[in-house]
Amino acid sequence: MAVRSPSQLCRRACAGAVVLALAALHGAAVQAAPGARTDDVNVFIGTGGDGHTFPGATRPFGMIQLSPDTQVRHFRQSYPWAAGYRYEDDSILGFSHTHFSGAGHSDLGDVLLMPASGEIKLDPGYPERPFSGYRSRFSHAEEHAEPGYYAVKLRDNAVDVELTASERVGLHRYRYKAGSAAKVLFDLRSSIYDYPGKNLWSRVRMRGADTVTGMRETRGWAPGRQLYFAIRFSRPFATHQLLNREEGVEYKGFAPPGKTASDKVQVEGKALEALFDFGDLRDAPLLVKVAVSAVSEDGALANLDEMPGWDFDAERRRAHDAWEGALGAVEIEAPQPMKRMVTTSLYHSMLAPSLFMDRDGRYRGPDNAVHQAEGFRFHSTFSLWDTYRALHPLLTLIQPAQRNADFVRSLVASQQASPYGILPVWQFAGLETWCMIGYHAVPVIADAYMKGLPGFDAEEALKAMTASADYGPYGGLEHYMKLGYVPIDLEPEAASKTVEYAFDDWTIARMAEKMGKKAVAAKYYARAKNWRNVFDRATGFVRARKSSGEFRTPFDPTQSNFGSDYTEGSAWQYSWYMPHDNAGLVGMLGGDAGLVAKIDQVFDARVDPAVYAHMEDISGLIGHYAHGNEPSHHVAYLYDYAGAPYKTQARLAQIVSSQYRDAPDGLAGNDDLGQTSAWLAFTALGFYPVAPGSNEYAIGRPFVQRAALNLPNGKRFIIRAEHFDPSNGYVGAVRLNGQPLARSFLRHDEIMAGGELVFTMQAAPDTAWGKDKSARPYSMTAY
Amino acid sequence: MAVRSPSQLCRRACAGAVVLALAALHGAAVQAAPGARTDDVNVFIGTGGDGHTFPGATRPFGMIQLSPDTQVRHFRQSYPWAAGYRYEDDSILGFSHTHFSGAGHSDLGDVLLMPASGEIKLDPGYPERPFSGYRSRFSHAEEHAEPGYYAVKLRDNAVDVELTASERVGLHRYRYKAGSAAKVLFDLRSSIYDYPGKNLWSRVRMRGADTVTGMRETRGWAPGRQLYFAIRFSRPFATHQLLNREEGVEYKGFAPPGKTASDKVQVEGKALEALFDFGDLRDAPLLVKVAVSAVSEDGALANLDEMPGWDFDAERRRAHDAWEGALGAVEIEAPQPMKRMVTTSLYHSMLAPSLFMDRDGRYRGPDNAVHQAEGFRFHSTFSLWDTYRALHPLLTLIQPAQRNADFVRSLVASQQASPYGILPVWQFAGLETWCMIGYHAVPVIADAYMKGLPGFDAEEALKAMTASADYGPYGGLEHYMKLGYVPIDLEPEAASKTVEYAFDDWTIARMAEKMGKKAVAAKYYARAKNWRNVFDRATGFVRARKSSGEFRTPFDPTQSNFGSDYTEGSAWQYSWYMPHDNAGLVGMLGGDAGLVAKIDQVFDARVDPAVYAHMEDISGLIGHYAHGNEPSHHVAYLYDYAGAPYKTQARLAQIVSSQYRDAPDGLAGNDDLGQTSAWLAFTALGFYPVAPGSNEYAIGRPFVQRAALNLPNGKRFIIRAEHFDPSNGYVGAVRLNGQPLARSFLRHDEIMAGGELVFTMQAAPDTAWGKDKSARPYSMTAY
Repeated sequence: MAVRSPSQLCRRACAGAVVLALAALHGAAVQAAPGARTDDVNVFIGTGGDGHTFPGATRPFGMIQLSPDTQVRHFRQSYPWAAGYRYEDDSILGFSHTHFSGAGHSDLGDVLLMPASGEIKLDPGYPERPFSGYRSRFSHAEEHAEPGYYAVKLRDNAVDVELTASERVGLHRYRYKAGSAAKVLFDLRSSIYDYPGKNLWSRVRMRGADTVTGMRETRGWAPGRQLYFAIRFSRPFATHQLLNREEGVEYKGFAPPGKTASDKVQVEGKALEALFDFGDLRDAPLLVKVAVSAVSEDGALANLDEMPGWDFDAERRRAHDAWEGALGAVEIEAPQPMKRMVTTSLYHSMLAPSLFMDRDGRYRGPDNAVHQAEGFRFHSTFSLWDTYRALHPLLTLIQPAQRNADFVRSLVASQQASPYGILPVWQFAGLETWCMIGYHAVPVIADAYMKGLPGFDAEEALKAMTASADYGPYGGLEHYMKLGYVPIDLEPEAASKTVEYAFDDWTIARMAEKMGKKAVAAKYYARAKNWRNVFDRATGFVRARKSSGEFRTPFDPTQSNFGSDYTEGSAWQYSWYMPHDNAGLVGMLGGDAGLVAKIDQVFDARVDPAVYAHMEDISGLIGHYAHGNEPSHHVAYLYDYAGAPYKTQARLAQIVSSQYRDAPDGLAGNDDLGQTSAWLAFTALGFYPVAPGSNEYAIGRPFVQRAALNLPNGKRFIIRAEHFDPSNGYVGAVRLNGQPLARSFLRHDEIMAGGELVFTMQAAPDTAWGKDKSARPYSMTAY
Repeated sequence: MAVRSPSQLCRRACAGAVVLALAALHGAAVQAAPGARTDDVNVFIGTGGDGHTFPGATRPFGMIQLSPDTQVRHFRQSYPWAAGYRYEDDSILGFSHTHFSGAGHSDLGDVLLMPASGEIKLDPGYPERPFSGYRSRFSHAEEHAEPGYYAVKLRDNAVDVELTASERVGLHRYRYKAGSAAKVLFDLRSSIYDYPGKNLWSRVRMRGADTVTGMRETRGWAPGRQLYFAIRFSRPFATHQLLNREEGVEYKGFAPPGKTASDKVQVEGKALEALFDFGDLRDAPLLVKVAVSAVSEDGALANLDEMPGWDFDAERRRAHDAWEGALGAVEIEAPQPMKRMVTTSLYHSMLAPSLFMDRDGRYRGPDNAVHQAEGFRFHSTFSLWDTYRALHPLLTLIQPAQRNADFVRSLVASQQASPYGILPVWQFAGLETWCMIGYHAVPVIADAYMKGLPGFDAEEALKAMTASADYGPYGGLEHYMKLGYVPIDLEPEAASKTVEYAFDDWTIARMAEKMGKKAVAAKYYARAKNWRNVFDRATGFVRARKSSGEFRTPFDPTQSNFGSDYTEGSAWQYSWYMPHDNAGLVGMLGGDAGLVAKIDQVFDARVDPAVYAHMEDISGLIGHYAHGNEPSHHVAYLYDYAGAPYKTQARLAQIVSSQYRDAPDGLAGNDDLGQTSAWLAFTALGFYPVAPGSNEYAIGRPFVQRAALNLPNGKRFIIRAEHFDPSNGYVGAVRLNGQPLARSFLRHDEIMAGGELVFTMQAAPDTAWGKDKSARPYSMTAY
């Protein structure tokens, strides 16, 4: 197993079992019903290693991700703590309300609260020096988490903490040590990837004796992000202190009323904190609700009303029920730990794109202005370079059409509000980050359209797609449109950009064709062939050309620096990315055998770990195959396209067994907002959407005994594996609704019609099944 | 003459005549009709010395004040350049769109544009080094300004600049040197009181080839102020450059599309500039419109539509007509330069409070949130410590009732949105600055109510007033309410606060009484006596007490430091501030003779200039009398209250002749958003509102031969001076509508009824007129 994890210590410590050991912590009233699907979610998967997931409480696609943070303030290494929490850590900084699940870059961690019994320091202190600050040691033995619920005992601060959430509200329950003053510290300075100068401005405002509102504006991953919040306590605080910790300011302005920190009604500045003292609560718990808004403090207050009562257990139950409902879209029968791994992958697939709209429909768009959503719910956190591949196709199957339409309409609304007039690239909090490459909102929308998803205006959507694909200043597009490829002397990572643009173009063509727009379709079908312009037959690799036409030299197919020919990858990883034209690839490589040989080389290469060690995103290595990063995700399925599905089946077993574990470091790389998990979810079911927009799934092999897809149209699609046994690693026969299926792909409409797909597993490879050219999945050009 | 002006050079150079010398600059089509009132406005009065006025283009109470700035970037002395421009300077930094008129603190100077023919540098450079930057030398001989219009020839930049404005839009007309590229530099870094770190965040966004929008957020006088703008050119630029000049940032985020400054559609950061190149325009002018908004970029764009066309001369004419209309409220007949001084004082009285609302009624309130004005127009820039005295009473007479109602409703709406639940103290851009003392929105509202001003809800208003007067954490009010005075050991400037609170309280009582709220009236009438608690009969001065009850010692009646017993004043200046109870003051001082003697001492004292030299606001000295600051403004009228109006008449002549001039340094101190000018306007007419809320004006003597007040109710009130001659400095008799007026005060209803007030001037003082106790103006307690 090649997971590039920094911590062997963690490998030993993080047995999956520890997670379930504390189910009755605090005698919580909610006890999941026996057999509840949430019981099979290990929310700690990915919280160690390079997974970058968070263990805290959230609802499916919820606006609030309320989770413990363990990072060290002003520690400049953003990558490992991208989700705030690392399983390897032994102290908690506090509990904040916004988190990415599995991102490769970092931000968020907004509205950090930390409770303590008795005294509490105003600065976080250091993990290696207990009691040096407000951070507190904890033990995984005294920690429990499940979908929608998180609990931990803060050892140094002597508080038992429980967290749950509705869509827009995080709910905390604190139990303090009797005889001590119950305190809550709010550190508005703190965030994930928290460097000096990140906070542009902030405000904390008292709203009576139990409520606080405010805002913070940051220059993080997204520039000028304004986050508003409302905090409400279940009982009035006895005293409060509003603190401005900023020093060395040239001009602070005239002092507002209030001589002491306790008199103040409002503070403004760059380094604010607030401290609330509730006195000795004896055994009574303190509850805290927190809502956020991108629009205004009043918006956050109104969002708070989403959760009117103070019944923590009822809220926990509602969160549990919401997850049971969401996870119920796929029923899994599989031995452990596979059942837990797959169920967790479904859980991780339903965290983003997340709701990002106030209750009244207002949201902030990519122009950093406030908009009103009409007839849809605005979602953000679009990690599109990752998620167009398998996450969105998965959500098309397991989420109501309305949710998927919300995604599409959010994308189109964003394009309409974009200063650039283009669709989101990597958007969160409504704002563009310009992270990664491509215009991959395009395949998300095209795939939804091709699958007949209702609820959005195709004309508007196509306009948004072509505007994005034709926006010259973006990523070398002006050259791409002129030359048919992105020239490396004018634009970095030109090879990756060319092949990804070609795929995106193909999805536009597909959609335009279906809409009857022949000229548009023809234009983008032509562009869809552009991957050929960067395929070097001589070496058998995709390479970057210069504007003069020559391939850039010297050429090293293992090179993978930033600014190289490729994006987070090497020629060994990027040369097989024309998922809409794998027959074309077969042709380039001299036939089926050529492709099979090349992909075999990818997996079987003996690669010095030093080759990719400098690229933190290239992880999960099997030879040159890097399961920890997205360019590899479709690669194992490529054998199908060369008529060798049995090789796909073998590679999948190799990947699944080495790259996923039921443990904190159980992901080979960043979960990337659910893409890495969605890969497992699809793969476990036995098929994978290699080319979104094709309405086909390449068939692999199932890793579960039985699964049922409870489809959004009310139909039910069953997957069953006969002779399911670790020793039977190959598919012998496939039957769809009782009829033998001779092809190595499944059509979307076949799934949506409901029915049963039965795999007969066997020990020996079946080299004949799927060999015929007509049996192979879609390709733009003929086999 | 004791004007504390730094520049004797200016005294020599700034003859009033220079202003009119250039009326035909650029052969402008608009030529004021002979006898136009605007001809008698010298907009340069106050632009030198300590006046802090600006010479640029604006409409009455307009949202845009488009004016040249001459200050030096990052030069830390904020006070002298509070309006951006100083007449003493010989180079212009650029033209910006927001300015205070006469403030004692500084901010604004938003959206600075600078044109140049040919090359232009990106940094401003230094006045002493011509061509070191984009700033350009100019000469007053090549400068012309009149209400609503400003023109100058930029010598170094070779551009003739003209400026005019509508309410929300500034309009520039540039004439470039033929044969050179016409350029416009936009420096979004620049502002008035421009120190490193002031810019929190900013954005510039291209909107096609002729329009730019954006925002800037600053921590200036008001914290976290967001200003949005829209700039539109009369023709497309050939090229643009968007620049981010910020250096040394830890994390700049991923790069948005656009490789060069010319490709960029948007920049975000803290130090932005934009450069527009229009190529050689030959002789064609370039016009630029700029609108601002506190709400959003779209709000600024919509505000731009207020001025649909591109006819500069027509816009200039509209601005001219607007000022003719506004100035028409008072017709003045007086010899020059008095006519010009008084007309200019009227002009300066109609610049603030200014409109601060988008065309759709949205505005930003003191909670820094967006609100919708319903049924009124939100105004801001309330310099209330100054303007409650004479400016608001003047505007009640010379502006439509609707405008005054807008002021009141803006104040009440601000209270309702205030995080503190109190009325504005010193508000601009909708935001509170906490500058100066008192709750002087209260007398503004009470005076409006007492005068029967329609258009606001008295119940809501009174609630806002009492909430402000009873807000304990503000300015020692909790102690004031307990002890009957503000104790100096717990709150600085306690003596000034006590006497001002007592006056404000009296105005609440007056209003409550008229509303029939006896309990409220009784409570605040009782508080209105609190000035007595800080009057020390032993020394005959108002002094600060400690919470133990003793007066603070040592006591020096000339002391005036920050944090002393007084606010920008000494005991000699602050001891006569109980304008609602001057009979009480007479009693304290042992009768009429006591008051007369004390006020004579104030004026006649021989004061070493060093005594007040450390306090920049204490200027315009005549003895201890400081006409440059507001606590003195009513003092000359106090003789009326001791039965000696002839002494008031003499002192007024002394003040008017020494403290006002028809020249750039023609104001004795800051104009303070029109208060210093409103003093002259009233005084010139012959009466002054010593105690707003009393519905009375103390009679002084006229400084004009004849004046007509064209009142907002359609009536006309004439003031006439018989035997008007410099040698006749005293009033012999007064007739109201033909009947002798034996009293030294005029009632508001007498003015509003229309009619004629005739003063018969004479050389000798009439010591009998106004001597009788019944003839004296209002006092809360009996004479």
